[in-house]
Amino acid sequence: MGSVAGYNLDYFKVSFPAEYVIHVEINRPEKMNAFIETMWLNLATIFNKISHDPNVRCAILSGSGDKAFTTGLDVQAASQGPILGSAAPGEDTARRGTALRRHILEFQDCITSLERCEKPVITLLHGHAYGLAIDMSLATTIRLAAANTRFCVKEVDIGLAADIGTLSRLPKAVGSFSWCNEVCLTARVFGAEEALRVGLVSGLFKDKAEGVRGAVEMATLISAKSPVAVQGTKEILGWSRDRGVEDGLKYTAVWNAAMLQTSDVKSALLSGLQKRKPTFEKL
Amino acid sequence: MGSVAGYNLDYFKVSFPAEYVIHVEINRPEKMNAFIETMWLNLATIFNKISHDPNVRCAILSGSGDKAFTTGLDVQAASQGPILGSAAPGEDTARRGTALRRHILEFQDCITSLERCEKPVITLLHGHAYGLAIDMSLATTIRLAAANTRFCVKEVDIGLAADIGTLSRLPKAVGSFSWCNEVCLTARVFGAEEALRVGLVSGLFKDKAEGVRGAVEMATLISAKSPVAVQGTKEILGWSRDRGVEDGLKYTAVWNAAMLQTSDVKSALLSGLQKRKPTFEKL
Amino acid sequence: MGSVAGYNLDYFKVSFPAEYVIHVEINRPEKMNAFIETMWLNLATIFNKISHDPNVRCAILSGSGDKAFTTGLDVQAASQGPILGSAAPGEDTARRGTALRRHILEFQDCITSLERCEKPVITLLHGHAYGLAIDMSLATTIRLAAANTRFCVKEVDIGLAADIGTLSRLPKAVGSFSWCNEVCLTARVFGAEEALRVGLVSGLFKDKAEGVRGAVEMATLISAKSPVAVQGTKEILGWSRDRGVEDGLKYTAVWNAAMLQTSDVKSALLSGLQKRKPTFEKL
Amino acid sequence: MGSVAGYNLDYFKVSFPAEYVIHVEINRPEKMNAFIETMWLNLATIFNKISHDPNVRCAILSGSGDKAFTTGLDVQAASQGPILGSAAPGEDTARRGTALRRHILEFQDCITSLERCEKPVITLLHGHAYGLAIDMSLATTIRLAAANTRFCVKEVDIGLAADIGTLSRLPKAVGSFSWCNEVCLTARVFGAEEALRVGLVSGLFKDKAEGVRGAVEMATLISAKSPVAVQGTKEILGWSRDRGVEDGLKYTAVWNAAMLQTSDVKSALLSGLQKRKPTFEKL
Amino acid sequence: MGSVAGYNLDYFKVSFPAEYVIHVEINRPEKMNAFIETMWLNLATIFNKISHDPNVRCAILSGSGDKAFTTGLDVQAASQGPILGSAAPGEDTARRGTALRRHILEFQDCITSLERCEKPVITLLHGHAYGLAIDMSLATTIRLAAANTRFCVKEVDIGLAADIGTLSRLPKAVGSFSWCNEVCLTARVFGAEEALRVGLVSGLFKDKAEGVRGAVEMATLISAKSPVAVQGTKEILGWSRDRGVEDGLKYTAVWNAAMLQTSDVKSALLSGLQKRKPTFEKL
Amino acid sequence: MGSVAGYNLDYFKVSFPAEYVIHVEINRPEKMNAFIETMWLNLATIFNKISHDPNVRCAILSGSGDKAFTTGLDVQAASQGPILGSAAPGEDTARRGTALRRHILEFQDCITSLERCEKPVITLLHGHAYGLAIDMSLATTIRLAAANTRFCVKEVDIGLAADIGTLSRLPKAVGSFSWCNEVCLTARVFGAEEALRVGLVSGLFKDKAEGVRGAVEMATLISAKSPVAVQGTKEILGWSRDRGVEDGLKYTAVWNAAMLQTSDVKSALLSGLQKRKPTFEKL
Repeated sequence: MGSVAGYNLDYFKVSFPAEYVIHVEINRPEKMNAFIETMWLNLATIFNKISHDPNVRCAILSGSGDKAFTTGLDVQAASQGPILGSAAPGEDTARRGTALRRHILEFQDCITSLERCEKPVITLLHGHAYGLAIDMSLATTIRLAAANTRFCVKEVDIGLAADIGTLSRLPKAVGSFSWCNEVCLTARVFGAEEALRVGLVSGLFKDKAEGVRGAVEMATLISAKSPVAVQGTKEILGWSRDRGVEDGLKYTAVWNAAMLQTSDVKSALLSGLQKRKPTFEKL
Repeated sequence: MGSVAGYNLDYFKVSFPAEYVIHVEINRPEKMNAFIETMWLNLATIFNKISHDPNVRCAILSGSGDKAFTTGLDVQAASQGPILGSAAPGEDTARRGTALRRHILEFQDCITSLERCEKPVITLLHGHAYGLAIDMSLATTIRLAAANTRFCVKEVDIGLAADIGTLSRLPKAVGSFSWCNEVCLTARVFGAEEALRVGLVSGLFKDKAEGVRGAVEMATLISAKSPVAVQGTKEILGWSRDRGVEDGLKYTAVWNAAMLQTSDVKSALLSGLQKRKPTFEKL
Repeated sequence: MGSVAGYNLDYFKVSFPAEYVIHVEINRPEKMNAFIETMWLNLATIFNKISHDPNVRCAILSGSGDKAFTTGLDVQAASQGPILGSAAPGEDTARRGTALRRHILEFQDCITSLERCEKPVITLLHGHAYGLAIDMSLATTIRLAAANTRFCVKEVDIGLAADIGTLSRLPKAVGSFSWCNEVCLTARVFGAEEALRVGLVSGLFKDKAEGVRGAVEMATLISAKSPVAVQGTKEILGWSRDRGVEDGLKYTAVWNAAMLQTSDVKSALLSGLQKRKPTFEKL
Repeated sequence: MGSVAGYNLDYFKVSFPAEYVIHVEINRPEKMNAFIETMWLNLATIFNKISHDPNVRCAILSGSGDKAFTTGLDVQAASQGPILGSAAPGEDTARRGTALRRHILEFQDCITSLERCEKPVITLLHGHAYGLAIDMSLATTIRLAAANTRFCVKEVDIGLAADIGTLSRLPKAVGSFSWCNEVCLTARVFGAEEALRVGLVSGLFKDKAEGVRGAVEMATLISAKSPVAVQGTKEILGWSRDRGVEDGLKYTAVWNAAMLQTSDVKSALLSGLQKRKPTFEKL
Repeated sequence: MGSVAGYNLDYFKVSFPAEYVIHVEINRPEKMNAFIETMWLNLATIFNKISHDPNVRCAILSGSGDKAFTTGLDVQAASQGPILGSAAPGEDTARRGTALRRHILEFQDCITSLERCEKPVITLLHGHAYGLAIDMSLATTIRLAAANTRFCVKEVDIGLAADIGTLSRLPKAVGSFSWCNEVCLTARVFGAEEALRVGLVSGLFKDKAEGVRGAVEMATLISAKSPVAVQGTKEILGWSRDRGVEDGLKYTAVWNAAMLQTSDVKSALLSGLQKRKPTFEKL
Repeated sequence: MGSVAGYNLDYFKVSFPAEYVIHVEINRPEKMNAFIETMWLNLATIFNKISHDPNVRCAILSGSGDKAFTTGLDVQAASQGPILGSAAPGEDTARRGTALRRHILEFQDCITSLERCEKPVITLLHGHAYGLAIDMSLATTIRLAAANTRFCVKEVDIGLAADIGTLSRLPKAVGSFSWCNEVCLTARVFGAEEALRVGLVSGLFKDKAEGVRGAVEMATLISAKSPVAVQGTKEILGWSRDRGVEDGLKYTAVWNAAMLQTSDVKSALLSGLQKRKPTFEKL
């Protein structure tokens, strides 16, 4: 069983609900799990560690408590901070612009750690899922939702274009560019049924508890498979989303030049014939 | 309130149904709003003007009259014109090919003015929406439809591959490449329910009148938001549709280096705390 | 009527159910149409020939028999072969990697012959449609399914990342990246209703027989149109799927510089006015 | 012979030194041909017209007078204008940023008219060739220089990153990325010999008069060839510079589907056999 | 030593001047090695075979005889053939365009077999090197030249844009886009010194005999190295030429995941310490 | 003057030879500055810090001592390490491949810190510059060399394809793809004159001492300019190298939306008129 040592960072609760399955909970329920800077830095630390931790084969991300996955940026804190705070009097526009750009790139990079993580990450959305909730979940591999989830691409309502990933990833995550434009421009709240219909999430559960059970079940299923196969599949799907089919095929061929030489193929084939569950070495 | 001065061009009817909201109607109802060359030239003039008009924050495009959004190219007129007309006797194939290519590029560019327009454009489709109707609506930001809309990617039926944008934009607008291929290759008519299901449109209304009301409502909602946020959101979504996530994130960070310095953020935050509607300077 | 001469290759049954319509059946029903190497080589030969055969305007691909479209790779055969077989003792990893890469590229190229084929290819999925069934159908133009189809992206279960095209094409074929990740990582079986909902297929039939009838009907409809228009439409949609809109538009304009000079446009226009069915010269 | 009618715009002198050859001179010698806004607008008008003028097959761009091709932006004028001028008191940063971006895009578009022009454009650089001189010449097809040319990528010295094209085109125009970075970051002046050595120019002449003769000779040579071949060659080279080889090859094949059907090929072949000069129809 | 069995195809002379080094000579000296269709088909057959022949580690391509590498397409033959020949009376432009496009793509594919070949190919240019000579040599890995080489991008002189690769590869092969445009648009002849100066060739020899010796020496040097290292280096350089640096780095990392596991690294390191020449297993 | 506090990491010597100019020396002269893992980790730490250090406007990278810039990887150390060391007995190929890929990506990322650094980095090459020397210098902005520099892309000689950046960056850094292929495939040593001729370096000095003086002079010149202009210029050139011109222009326009609002433009313009040296606020 994996160990939580090294994962205990402020504002996150980490557990191992099943072998090879790590559950990361955003843990600031008294503030609806709203994010302050420490939190996205810690998020990146956790998922960078998961990426190479041989005891983890699949991760689950959810909020702590019943009310919210997260309501997004803690606007009150942010309004004092480098992004939403006011300029110093007489501050040069270009210098402030440079500071903003650096800050945004660092913030983006923290959220992208979810996408870069070599292991699949399943997000369970529930309750309020506003702003940063969408950015984060779009950087994960699979999105599931509790029936009570209230989604909102909120950024336009605080005067800015969402800059931590939603606008770059949403057009590639759902099947209607019109809908994508609509929810980003109106910031209207939508529910889990609609999220399922447009493909933003691929599974729905009656409440958060069911959702967690469902996510753990899916994560357990994935973790029982060859980690060589799983991690390769995640990597190639992500690569291919952003490039033409030709480049996808070439990258896949090179990838499998090494990966098909694994003993996992033999184990999997043999187990199949013998109708028993294979076990695979850690990765 | 915006002024229609300068927008009164042949075959278009322009009005301001709400503050910052412009409604552009294709106005040749006696011919089912079929397009002749003057019309796409005027369309481009109108939307190029809207792009920088500070009195417009959101545009609506619909057909005039009840029968059709548009039945597409006026085939009778076109069959005399440079695209569908016959070659002069002895005309050199390469020279005619060059003329055709120039003509297509110019025609495409007129329709692309809808996409290049910095303000969101909501299309309300209704009645017949054939051929050019699809090309045009795909270059706009949000597509809504009345229940009676009859869609058709008609071009293959007049012996040509659609060349004004449908074939380039449709694969990125809907969530089923198989469906996209099917409707382009069969030219079969499909209805508004199907268009909603595949994501071609993101909203449905019982008839055109309801649709216009709905579009105006949505446009009004968008226009009440910071134009800095709205225009940035539209631009980045369009950029990201056509590129990988990495390039999307980098472009966003540079964009917001300037745009986060707006006073709109402060206004929006403050209004949020004070539970009142913010107002934003023109853009 | 087209002739089957030259199409009679092992493990495939070829017929002409209608003028210009070729039906290619995977024909190894006693093994659930599972694939051995000869089969994908023959598949490529067949579709390379169809590509330039003027007597074919649209192709249909299905399995033979009622049980399966195909269950995918014949794993028993493959486990003796170059991809899934064991390394020779002392074989150098890089040299084996090179052999694997060459083999995968050749295999991919056979399947890509479906996509490269200039004529539209309609796949009718039915019964078991596992592994290679998905790779193949994703390289075709239109996917239809019988209600009893059981789909599965199976590769992860035999210890490998699918390398013959599914991971490169699926993210561009359906409208939910979350769903796409989920089915590839879990290898769970899903049904035809779900395939329709996410857009993997665009038509559903109550059984295989109905499906074949539906596919022939659609193929006949497509074959009645100008082959210049049909082939151009297929080519440009495929090009545009993999590139930004700008590059799509430019390619289209160059394409139509030649293609609009066809007499098919005149025939189509004239027939439209005269309310009769046009005929088009072979291509 | 071509007619200058329609080309006589302020600050430009236009002549036809040979059949099909137009010579466009930047004509503000009393200010070292420094650019004010009217000038780049007129430049675009001229080259947009050349693009489709059948009487022009090749254009030459030079400065008027002996002192300078151009010293670039008229800084004094610009410091009052929208780009380099001061913000209005209290002007919102995002709104000013938007105005700047719009202005830059329009300015870029004027300069890009040189690249978009379907006919080859030969630049003859001479005397001072600072700032905008580099931006403009990089958008043309062939760069020649008089021995006395003094080149300078000047923009960094007035506090800004060159934004009208130099930074985007220079890395693709010369064969040393280190040199390209160096001259853009140091704004040091370099001479014609160095420009030839790094490939920025491809021909050198002892003075401006010789250079003009050389440019006219080259333009005359190009104009004697099939305009179908010449314009296709320019277009495909420009397309290929910006894309991978695969996309270059595919675009070329589509291009020549129409263009090889020209009678120019027969004329050229026949003339070759008969050792006489072919003539080609206008384009 | 490699065997020429299977390489003896019409119009080519094949020999093994050194271990692992194959020399392919275009062998139609009585016609200045001008190409007819059989020749490019045979060329592709030869280089497809070399690509996987473990007895070849490096190939050399030259012309046979002293006069010419090749003068390019045999224009007399071509003027009867599908590309340059006349249309049949009443032939539909689109159908002829389709035939032309298919033919060009097949021709391109034959020449691209030089680039796709997994082994490095060194071209020795000498004497006349016109038209197709440039297309072919640009698809090879290294270009060397005898001092008497006369280069010419000839196509524009026969009324067409070069469509077999020159226009797509030349901008990426040399360091001056201006020079590249100039030689393609003027079709002027240039010599070996100039070709060296602009980077088209990277080595110069006093005559053909010296050139062949030099090419064999270079090929022998390359063949003495690990074929794992050599083939990987060729592949990654080709990949990277066409894509951004990020994609180059990612592809390299995946490539070396398999390739660094070779025993060649150990052999090479050990030989280095022991100051002796390593030997490497075939690939 | 900048402070070296925080820059004093093992194997590096850091100094400030001029205001805003930092000089980073690889400092393991007793081993010809050969690299062990600590060194590339420290290199990344140093350049990540420089990137945001307002006291640095330009950096210089050289080797310490007279003999070598660096001879590359310390092969003896590496042969015990994760990349070149042997596999554990029975180690699964895919798992070892995964470890290798992770290791390469981390190593690449360290070297790419030179490219990501917001400030220009000038490399002075001298003495031995083998293997990693080329990878590193290619990730910097400007390359200068002492006359005694001996360059070598050495990797192929130790049995591997260079994987830390040379193969991805060299094709974009020099003007001859043939030369680039040649030196990577032969691993031949070449001198500074040749490096200058092909554009690998853009400046040559008679010995290292002169080279350092030259680099400091260039760095001082760059540091005297507006850091807003300098950093924007570096960023846009790097962006444009990897993308088409259209994307370069659009990114530039967005960049300057913020950056043109700097007071540096006014300072620079005013100083120009007053013929005095401007000073610019830190960035």
